[in-house]
Amino acid sequence: MITFTIPSFTDIRNAHLRISSEIHRTPVLRSASINDLSGVQAFFKCENFQKVGAFKYRGAVNAVLSLSDIEANRGVATHSSGNHAAALALAAKKRGIKCYVAMPSTAPKTKAAAVRYYGAEITFCEPNLQSREDTLNMIIRRTGATFIHPFDNFNVICGQGTAAREFLEEVPDLEILLVPVGGGGLLSGSAIAARAISPDIQVFGCEPANADDACRSFHSGTLFPSVNPNTIADGLLTSLSELTFAIVRKNVQDILTVPESSILSAMRLVWERMKIIIEPSSAVPVAVMMENREKFAGKKMGIILSGGNCDLSNLPFREA
Amino acid sequence: MITFTIPSFTDIRNAHLRISSEIHRTPVLRSASINDLSGVQAFFKCENFQKVGAFKYRGAVNAVLSLSDIEANRGVATHSSGNHAAALALAAKKRGIKCYVAMPSTAPKTKAAAVRYYGAEITFCEPNLQSREDTLNMIIRRTGATFIHPFDNFNVICGQGTAAREFLEEVPDLEILLVPVGGGGLLSGSAIAARAISPDIQVFGCEPANADDACRSFHSGTLFPSVNPNTIADGLLTSLSELTFAIVRKNVQDILTVPESSILSAMRLVWERMKIIIEPSSAVPVAVMMENREKFAGKKMGIILSGGNCDLSNLPFREA
Repeated sequence: MITFTIPSFTDIRNAHLRISSEIHRTPVLRSASINDLSGVQAFFKCENFQKVGAFKYRGAVNAVLSLSDIEANRGVATHSSGNHAAALALAAKKRGIKCYVAMPSTAPKTKAAAVRYYGAEITFCEPNLQSREDTLNMIIRRTGATFIHPFDNFNVICGQGTAAREFLEEVPDLEILLVPVGGGGLLSGSAIAARAISPDIQVFGCEPANADDACRSFHSGTLFPSVNPNTIADGLLTSLSELTFAIVRKNVQDILTVPESSILSAMRLVWERMKIIIEPSSAVPVAVMMENREKFAGKKMGIILSGGNCDLSNLPFREA
Repeated sequence: MITFTIPSFTDIRNAHLRISSEIHRTPVLRSASINDLSGVQAFFKCENFQKVGAFKYRGAVNAVLSLSDIEANRGVATHSSGNHAAALALAAKKRGIKCYVAMPSTAPKTKAAAVRYYGAEITFCEPNLQSREDTLNMIIRRTGATFIHPFDNFNVICGQGTAAREFLEEVPDLEILLVPVGGGGLLSGSAIAARAISPDIQVFGCEPANADDACRSFHSGTLFPSVNPNTIADGLLTSLSELTFAIVRKNVQDILTVPESSILSAMRLVWERMKIIIEPSSAVPVAVMMENREKFAGKKMGIILSGGNCDLSNLPFREA
């Protein structure tokens, strides 16, 4: 039997106290033209402006600051080729401790460069789960570092929940909250915080149709893995864990999916109308809003723009 | 003999009163990593978030609101393929009057689409100065519309000066102000406002080396036209007018130029580090800051990010 501890809103508040001097309190932006086009009142919480360019820094810094000095001195480790690795690297650097990252040899050079920029030590592995876990375990045996999972981690989820808390402090009467879902760390933390602050708010997970494992899990009640996901939203490839699935089932209204073409249009819409850079994963909830105009007509909607890390040399825009 | 009236700071304050309910008070952003890289304390006034995506809306709306009802009823006209045309179109639409634009037939479709989106009537002309002026004059004879020049216009300059005023209200102790210069409307208004508020501030015009007519005019004391400018900063192709040249000579410390490669690097820097979209013209003062680290070391520097309108299908980024 698997047991785990589900964070409460008090845990998220404590995380917020712990990290608030370390993170940016990111702005909430609006767009008159997107409101015109969508027929809703949309508010955007800009975690693309967070340190390392993504909400992931909240969870990583909360996990790092929650370590005892003895644990911290042995460092932290993770396997990731994305924003979590960069976030953990910076959080470790700020505490003055080591960070070890197991990264597939096929990861884009820009990702490895970002992690190295923040001072982490990278060990490359084969691009498969077995090699990644073997490499990580070897690092941990060698160093005694604490493994900080990207989302299946109590302190990480508590940190991620602080964005929704700030959001509802600034816009208390949000009726709907749209959050992208991959592993479910951001969605879990957001849903716990939002429903504690505003019991009537409806929280929706937003997922690419081409990586709809969370949607299928939610509707069937059985945790499905993500099988051969193929989406531009490369932050949303992972599956829920038992922990995040339990939180999502209890606190989330529904999981809505959108096709790739809608994600791309939504990304372009935000770039063109708001003049801010969001990564494809952040465009997923925007696409959900644009594809469900009737469902959400006239509502006060919050969208968490989860990050802004894109490879500018390889953008997906073609002739409109 | 040419005579003209040079705006005073009182004129800019009056413009600000006139337009403040019509414009966005744009945010001032900072970037820790750009400060680290440049060795200065940089503040960015984000006119890329202004209506129509550029500071041009300030001048256009001030010009439109300064018309008498009789003048306004006959509409406004301009020749431009850029941000001024879109700005004038929206300003006219908001006042409920007509806007006529003479635009070269070679202008990008996206530019014509933007102007049409705001309700202006476009007349296409040949892509040369004679055809443009003939077409504009024909429109004015036919309609009685008032010509609103993109920068050689008292009310336009007063409107553009309101951005620097907001900037210094928010960051009163700026020591340096960097402003891009094409026709000199923004630089003129900014310099008048900044020096009235902070007499010791140094205002620099920032220009592509490949379109350095303002720099040569400034240093020689004779107004040079822009001859075959060839720069990615397509908002800075035009030359100063007698009016803007007179203001710039009196109020600006110097005009600094930067090569194309620096403009492109600066644009990429802002996109990657700040996650905001700026057009190439806005990257010119950022490039000036990065290329003059010793000159500006440790200073509190203000940069006006003039606009954010880019063709996303045709971006200049290549493998880094």
